[in-house]
Amino acid sequence: MNFKMIFHMLGKILTLEGVLMLLPLLVSALYREQCLSAFLITIGISLILGSVMLKVFRPKDRVIFAKEGFILVALTWLVSSVIGALPFVISGEIPSFVDAFFETVSGFTTTGASILTDVEAMSHGLLFWRSFTHWIGGMGVLVLMIALLPSDSGRTIHILRAEMPGPVVGKLVPKARDTAKILYYIYLGMTVLQILLLLFGGMNLFESVVHTFGTAGTGGFGVRGDSIAGYSPYIQWVITIFMLLFGVNFNMYYMILLRRFKNTFRSEEFWCYLSVVGLATILIAVNVSSIMPGIGDTIRHASFQVASIITTTGYATVDFNLWPAFSKAILLLLMFMGGCAGSTAGGLKVSRVVLLWKSIRRNFRELLHPHSVGVVRFEGKKVEDDTLRSVNVYFAIYTLIMGGIFLLLCLEPFSIETNLSATISCFNNVGPGFDLVGPASSYALYAPWAKVLLSIAMLLGRLEIYPLIIFFIPSAWRRR
Amino acid sequence: MNFKMIFHMLGKILTLEGVLMLLPLLVSALYREQCLSAFLITIGISLILGSVMLKVFRPKDRVIFAKEGFILVALTWLVSSVIGALPFVISGEIPSFVDAFFETVSGFTTTGASILTDVEAMSHGLLFWRSFTHWIGGMGVLVLMIALLPSDSGRTIHILRAEMPGPVVGKLVPKARDTAKILYYIYLGMTVLQILLLLFGGMNLFESVVHTFGTAGTGGFGVRGDSIAGYSPYIQWVITIFMLLFGVNFNMYYMILLRRFKNTFRSEEFWCYLSVVGLATILIAVNVSSIMPGIGDTIRHASFQVASIITTTGYATVDFNLWPAFSKAILLLLMFMGGCAGSTAGGLKVSRVVLLWKSIRRNFRELLHPHSVGVVRFEGKKVEDDTLRSVNVYFAIYTLIMGGIFLLLCLEPFSIETNLSATISCFNNVGPGFDLVGPASSYALYAPWAKVLLSIAMLLGRLEIYPLIIFFIPSAWRRR
Repeated sequence: MNFKMIFHMLGKILTLEGVLMLLPLLVSALYREQCLSAFLITIGISLILGSVMLKVFRPKDRVIFAKEGFILVALTWLVSSVIGALPFVISGEIPSFVDAFFETVSGFTTTGASILTDVEAMSHGLLFWRSFTHWIGGMGVLVLMIALLPSDSGRTIHILRAEMPGPVVGKLVPKARDTAKILYYIYLGMTVLQILLLLFGGMNLFESVVHTFGTAGTGGFGVRGDSIAGYSPYIQWVITIFMLLFGVNFNMYYMILLRRFKNTFRSEEFWCYLSVVGLATILIAVNVSSIMPGIGDTIRHASFQVASIITTTGYATVDFNLWPAFSKAILLLLMFMGGCAGSTAGGLKVSRVVLLWKSIRRNFRELLHPHSVGVVRFEGKKVEDDTLRSVNVYFAIYTLIMGGIFLLLCLEPFSIETNLSATISCFNNVGPGFDLVGPASSYALYAPWAKVLLSIAMLLGRLEIYPLIIFFIPSAWRRR
Repeated sequence: MNFKMIFHMLGKILTLEGVLMLLPLLVSALYREQCLSAFLITIGISLILGSVMLKVFRPKDRVIFAKEGFILVALTWLVSSVIGALPFVISGEIPSFVDAFFETVSGFTTTGASILTDVEAMSHGLLFWRSFTHWIGGMGVLVLMIALLPSDSGRTIHILRAEMPGPVVGKLVPKARDTAKILYYIYLGMTVLQILLLLFGGMNLFESVVHTFGTAGTGGFGVRGDSIAGYSPYIQWVITIFMLLFGVNFNMYYMILLRRFKNTFRSEEFWCYLSVVGLATILIAVNVSSIMPGIGDTIRHASFQVASIITTTGYATVDFNLWPAFSKAILLLLMFMGGCAGSTAGGLKVSRVVLLWKSIRRNFRELLHPHSVGVVRFEGKKVEDDTLRSVNVYFAIYTLIMGGIFLLLCLEPFSIETNLSATISCFNNVGPGFDLVGPASSYALYAPWAKVLLSIAMLLGRLEIYPLIIFFIPSAWRRR
């Protein structure tokens, strides 16, 4: 285990977080808010801690392996969340550290579950920071660091792999750093475009930026108690479309930039994603049409909610907790699926679901024709047995962990529906659930220990389980 | 596809069902009940149909393969359930055919979910038949036929494999027929023992037999509205112990008969099963202790409910729907696990859960030590990669199908908790669920289409998915 290299990188991350916090500092300065000092103190802490670590840990051996990648990612996310929680606590706007930690983890993991009962009372600076964590966490803190800073190691791909979601993480270009840069350019470009479109719809600059961060990271933090319900249909449509766009594999956008249109639009994952969105929207629209004022509203609300849940964003234009059971069941199942691999969305990812489906189909083929050898193809390529196996095992551990978290959460005296949907929603980084944690409510009712549990669930979901589990396996820490 | 052989075997099954129905006929004769004529008519139908099929289909080629095994099993269970439903309809005690079909499928699949709102109004003959289907379905209709009738084919192992639950079905002895016989001798012996013990506790003969059938098949049909709550603690303890015994792999009992004690009690699956039962009992006992009158009651009810749910029997001594969320969550998770492979219990089976766990552990080992080759051992033997793979794929299809059934069931306007627990309970062959389908309620509230859906869920669960799916794949029916 290359400890020095891990702590060296962590020092960089702390420094980076301090620098990133200059943006909310600026916002609080513009609005002349008291939280300014909270940001100043936190920036000071992270810059000092970061530079001390960079001084102390000067690795000679700069090689890292998969194991170091996992542990670095777990450490980065835990430390960033602790530091990121400080402004809430120091400013006194979220006095309890556990609450602030929950809110920050929910931000970085792009979950959007909140313990705030009155979001409209928060200062602009902290609302900005809260949503900015979505934007940073969506594409990845370490991916950002790799994109910004000159690479120390020839093996940064292990870090990309450990932080980026999906069953197979490939490099777009030979160098990991260039891959990270390209991803962030695309991300930034789409972010700017959405801000402009929201401004065009009459939303003010602050809210446009905040809601774009929430959309881009597929997070879901907003500035109003009723989420997106109070905005115009135009705004709601813009957010619907951008949620869907941020749920697509970013490799596709790169292919489009390279004008390789042919292969791009053949992507199985993309068509499967669009088909599920279309089908779910139609089914829900039919199911809720009787309780909606008109066909336009029906389609807008159905597609908004489907886009919001499948991309695990979690914005709402209506209280879907009041919808009929069938629509709620569709939303619940969409939470599991999530968006495409290589997007900012959470969940199992469409490609994993497709691969699970294909491995099931292969099993039937082999049962019916015992002497045939089943080959599984995906995106035009043969899928290795190892990849299929790891997808299947991932699904098993994903379900097992969700079951365990649900069981523990049931020590809280709420309904099965509340606790189950809270578990599924947090673990898949969606945000709202049903019953007492529906879109019109918050997670404030949970006890501190349950908030910590749900924070762990969010981290496990965002980091796709392995990094955090390996972080807690003692033998993983042993030196080579 | 060897159609002639399949329909020949089906003719035998129909004949066998007619013969088995002589037992409830006798019961209704003893109690001088009107349902006697219903049994006479049904016996006539099945014997005539059976012998016509045996005359018409005289296969020259008696060889069958895995595919035929699956289709025969699916056909057998569908046809047996239709014939088995007739006495309820003809007697007028369950006038609706869909209701009677649901009740019979629930019987054969050893689920024990009922549409009866007043079970105490039923005649003895039909109550006996209802519970007798548990006993027949527990070990398997085809296994019984193979045990009773001289074998037609050297490949009856394909039928055993398709009907018997668990990830790997082995023969105890070289001949499939002898294996089937041994299993039924053990089953019969344990059944007689339980009847005697219940009689000893003061239960009358009829109720002793009926409740033993319900326990042996891990079914759960009783004769009283409050299930087992009205009986003495002695009776409740006898049933607890026998539920647990019938949830153990029957191979273990065979080993005990052969006096191979050493290997027997080393079984990983057995110890895992016992540990889960013990742990769940302790957790529930602690959780419900405050709402129970005393420690004796607490332990009795906790262990009864744990035994009842993990073995997927579904009897109840209390209305566990009123228990706190934590206890309900434990019961819900136990429904997924089920009993041991090669027992009469439903669910995923303990051995599958253990193998899933071991494949997860192997994955972590390989992540941490990329160049190691992970070997998985179970019950002292190396597990083939193909077995692990099929367990993982089984879990994926199991979850997928449960999700699909839940989604469709949500077209019924009941709570998520009702529909979800109904799906999980029926699919895992448990019986009662929570909320509106709790142990104090029935499935009468569901619409006919939903009852058919849940009947399919019960069959899918009992037959472990593949036979019924293959039955509905057109290409499987093609001739070779």
